[in-house]
Amino acid sequence: MLGQMMNLPLTITNLMRFADKVYGSSEIVSVTIDSPRHRCTYADAFKRARQLANALAKLGVERGQCIGTLAWNDYRHLELYYAISCSGMVCHTINPRLFPEQLEYIINHAEDQWLFVDLAFVPLLEKLADQLPGVKGYVVLTDAAHMPKNSSLSNLICYETLIANEPDSFDWPQLDENEASALCYTSGTTGNPKGVLYSHRSTVLHCYGTVLPDVFGLSVHDVVMPIVPMFHVNGWGLVYSGPMVGAKLVLPGPKMGDGETLCALINDEGVTLSAGVPTVWLALLDFLEKSDESVPTLERVTTGGAACPQPIFDKFRERYGVEVQQAWGMTEMSPLGTYNSFKPHMRDWPESDKTPLRLKQGRPACGVELKIVDDANRELPWDGKAAGAVKVRGPWVIQRYFKATADATDADGWFETGDVATVDADGYMMITDRTKDVIKSGGEWISSIELENTAMTHPQVAEAAVIGIYHEKWTERPLLVVVPRAGTTPDPAELLAHFQGKVASWWIPEACELVPELPHTATGKVSKKDLRAQFQGYRWGSKSMGQ
Amino acid sequence: MLGQMMNLPLTITNLMRFADKVYGSSEIVSVTIDSPRHRCTYADAFKRARQLANALAKLGVERGQCIGTLAWNDYRHLELYYAISCSGMVCHTINPRLFPEQLEYIINHAEDQWLFVDLAFVPLLEKLADQLPGVKGYVVLTDAAHMPKNSSLSNLICYETLIANEPDSFDWPQLDENEASALCYTSGTTGNPKGVLYSHRSTVLHCYGTVLPDVFGLSVHDVVMPIVPMFHVNGWGLVYSGPMVGAKLVLPGPKMGDGETLCALINDEGVTLSAGVPTVWLALLDFLEKSDESVPTLERVTTGGAACPQPIFDKFRERYGVEVQQAWGMTEMSPLGTYNSFKPHMRDWPESDKTPLRLKQGRPACGVELKIVDDANRELPWDGKAAGAVKVRGPWVIQRYFKATADATDADGWFETGDVATVDADGYMMITDRTKDVIKSGGEWISSIELENTAMTHPQVAEAAVIGIYHEKWTERPLLVVVPRAGTTPDPAELLAHFQGKVASWWIPEACELVPELPHTATGKVSKKDLRAQFQGYRWGSKSMGQ
Repeated sequence: MLGQMMNLPLTITNLMRFADKVYGSSEIVSVTIDSPRHRCTYADAFKRARQLANALAKLGVERGQCIGTLAWNDYRHLELYYAISCSGMVCHTINPRLFPEQLEYIINHAEDQWLFVDLAFVPLLEKLADQLPGVKGYVVLTDAAHMPKNSSLSNLICYETLIANEPDSFDWPQLDENEASALCYTSGTTGNPKGVLYSHRSTVLHCYGTVLPDVFGLSVHDVVMPIVPMFHVNGWGLVYSGPMVGAKLVLPGPKMGDGETLCALINDEGVTLSAGVPTVWLALLDFLEKSDESVPTLERVTTGGAACPQPIFDKFRERYGVEVQQAWGMTEMSPLGTYNSFKPHMRDWPESDKTPLRLKQGRPACGVELKIVDDANRELPWDGKAAGAVKVRGPWVIQRYFKATADATDADGWFETGDVATVDADGYMMITDRTKDVIKSGGEWISSIELENTAMTHPQVAEAAVIGIYHEKWTERPLLVVVPRAGTTPDPAELLAHFQGKVASWWIPEACELVPELPHTATGKVSKKDLRAQFQGYRWGSKSMGQ
Repeated sequence: MLGQMMNLPLTITNLMRFADKVYGSSEIVSVTIDSPRHRCTYADAFKRARQLANALAKLGVERGQCIGTLAWNDYRHLELYYAISCSGMVCHTINPRLFPEQLEYIINHAEDQWLFVDLAFVPLLEKLADQLPGVKGYVVLTDAAHMPKNSSLSNLICYETLIANEPDSFDWPQLDENEASALCYTSGTTGNPKGVLYSHRSTVLHCYGTVLPDVFGLSVHDVVMPIVPMFHVNGWGLVYSGPMVGAKLVLPGPKMGDGETLCALINDEGVTLSAGVPTVWLALLDFLEKSDESVPTLERVTTGGAACPQPIFDKFRERYGVEVQQAWGMTEMSPLGTYNSFKPHMRDWPESDKTPLRLKQGRPACGVELKIVDDANRELPWDGKAAGAVKVRGPWVIQRYFKATADATDADGWFETGDVATVDADGYMMITDRTKDVIKSGGEWISSIELENTAMTHPQVAEAAVIGIYHEKWTERPLLVVVPRAGTTPDPAELLAHFQGKVASWWIPEACELVPELPHTATGKVSKKDLRAQFQGYRWGSKSMGQ
């Protein structure tokens, strides 16, 4: 028997209508290339989104087609988010930092009809345009005064001119909640980028899940500054969740890595909550220390995208009274999977117990089902010890990559994240490795990350990596590869002895090799793949412990 | 083009699984007839819900069939909520305070297969049982020791005995999110009660909408005591939203109107948030004043179900440091429509401005679309002045009453709430009347409630009611009907003059009649319907102002 409540769809359009009516006077403050501090209200931005929707219809874009954006966080990009998705088109946010061949691939793969680009990215596109036969034209996100004078791009349009004479009313189409709203590509280390195609439903549900009091806890009383780019998984959804609750938005434009601008924005606009990757926090902390400034309105900071070093937590808390909280997720998860805030019994813990908890990735948000499994796909207990591959399920988790012919899920419908983690009895997940880097020894898993962290505490170690090497008896055993600190020549046996008492004895690497340098990926991480290739066929010496 | 995220249903089952895994150790404290302070965890309750689900299957109840409950707020009622709905059956919560003929009507209309009842309601059912041919049996929510000895009810089962030997694992069925989960009847003043049939989807979405930081703001750090009965629109959803966020639940059982017990529960259990109707707060405040007790852990109180008198707001805030917030909704809305919490610019207002704001019903929660319309169904502006009929729309609003043959919505798909209200520019709704009581004068609407409140400020008025009476020129004009305060004989002309300067001059009642008493409904409200019947054919005198 079916319930008899209204069968109304969850759409970004309804979210926008709600915010326009109930929170129309909430502010959006932006840094753009043509204005260091642009101010408008939600009502202004949604009015311009309706003008833009009229313009998009005239550009000949059809429902279901993609429009690409290469843009920083500002009000014009926000207008694009809403006008495109609510018109039934797909907002394809493109990371301008990708390699040119990746940009070419994804723009063509998405069949982007038009590209809306910041002034700063025009030169990039001038070089690429010949390889983008499907793109009908380029709209520069600026006013007439700032338009490039002699661009080689054909069909180059000024955004402000495009929307200037359009009516500010628009009859938004009735959408099915499962229609596609946005597209974001993951830039994997191997193969071509893969697209994740979000729906209106997944976006609205993700929004509800992320504003919960123990997740972002986003409120009309917050002033939120998403430093995470709007081309990184929809800026972690903050450009949707801000309007859901009426929060004031501060969008730092191209100034995301500029500690001085971030500090000024926080203090001038009264920012209470900000979100970004650890490098952003390092830049902000660095500026604060040098300038002797403070950030009294800032209450909490969400960090994600990479493991956050402990000093960031400590400095923010001790010097500036800001609580740093980890979030974990991925493009395939819209992105939120887990969030780390305290449970009641943890509030009175001594700092020595709080610190290791803060370093965990947190507990699942309501809407995300999470499990850890062993090699045979058997679910492992949440005891804080058993480490397994992390699998997730939920209405904002991917089913299938864009244009793929097979599902991205396992036979039971779970998505394997590629992470290895423990989960404790309170539901807090701690990532210990990537699935492809974990070392499988005697049927058990050894965390390469934990061994590397331990190695790095040795004074003579500049950089360390641990990889699994084939072993007759144990299948794999860990090999420690070390770049010595300049001017030192550490003794491999002593480096291995350094692990005694710090990790389980059977985790201690089997051998240690010194190298002048480690291979790195384009983003600066150690390339385990290249390192494994370098040590292919490695043979354990007679001293190795496991034999 | 459809998005490619997982097509997973929004179900109470998934909500329960989440709470069981992530918040299994959160507590549920109950007052029951067999225990003054029963304690268990979510994990305990969900384990017993699985035992109960096995028992329900053995009782022969099928998917889509209704099971009735007549019970106060406690852990066993919570187990019923989850076991019934997650089994794909419908949890029909019955208000035991209804008249016997209404109970008979709704139990038969719902075709309840079994009734699960508190010990206290067994005598009530013994009298009714002959009229309930479809009910297969009665399960008393108690243990063997407390079972009634000589009941006339056939097939009388003890709840604890029923579930005791059942396995604590259960294979929950895969449900469609639109399947019915619960049923609640409205007890209208005319005609038979009408059933509202909730779905899993509407329930989960309502849950997300109500826990938002600016609505209930419910968190794992809260200890929440729903004093609103679980048979009143699912206890305003708190038995679902508590588990969604992991909050500790305090369920006061039959002690809802007992100020002393409520105070003890608040202080012993550290209650931070409570929710109920104004009479409950009067009982609690009365006890606090008499006993000189305080409620230091209590932070906020949600009041709804009826207009809340200003002294409740003031006393709680001034004497006990508790913020009282209004919620508005109805059975047909799951129930939440609007919630009254401040926007940022209101926080610094003087108390003299905050008070009238607190008396409003608040702004819509994200998920509820609200409009006010005039007689011609034209939308009225949100200017705080124009009053119109309140219409709502959203995924947790009714489409059609249970077993009805026509929709409960208008041609455009909106549900008319029966309330008349203004909405200000910030989106705060203020109910001024019921649609059927509003006075339509010269094409404009006059609020009977506001006139009654004004009349009540006159020292010689004990009770007052204002109704619309036919008027040749203005269609309707207001008639003031007054019960004089004992020992006084007010002058009608002076009572009318009392309105001068307090309301718009054309709102001032046309005439005033003194009566010894007013007709009342069973719940103690003035029966405008009976009053209108009493004054049918009333003729305006020559002095009336409108002529």
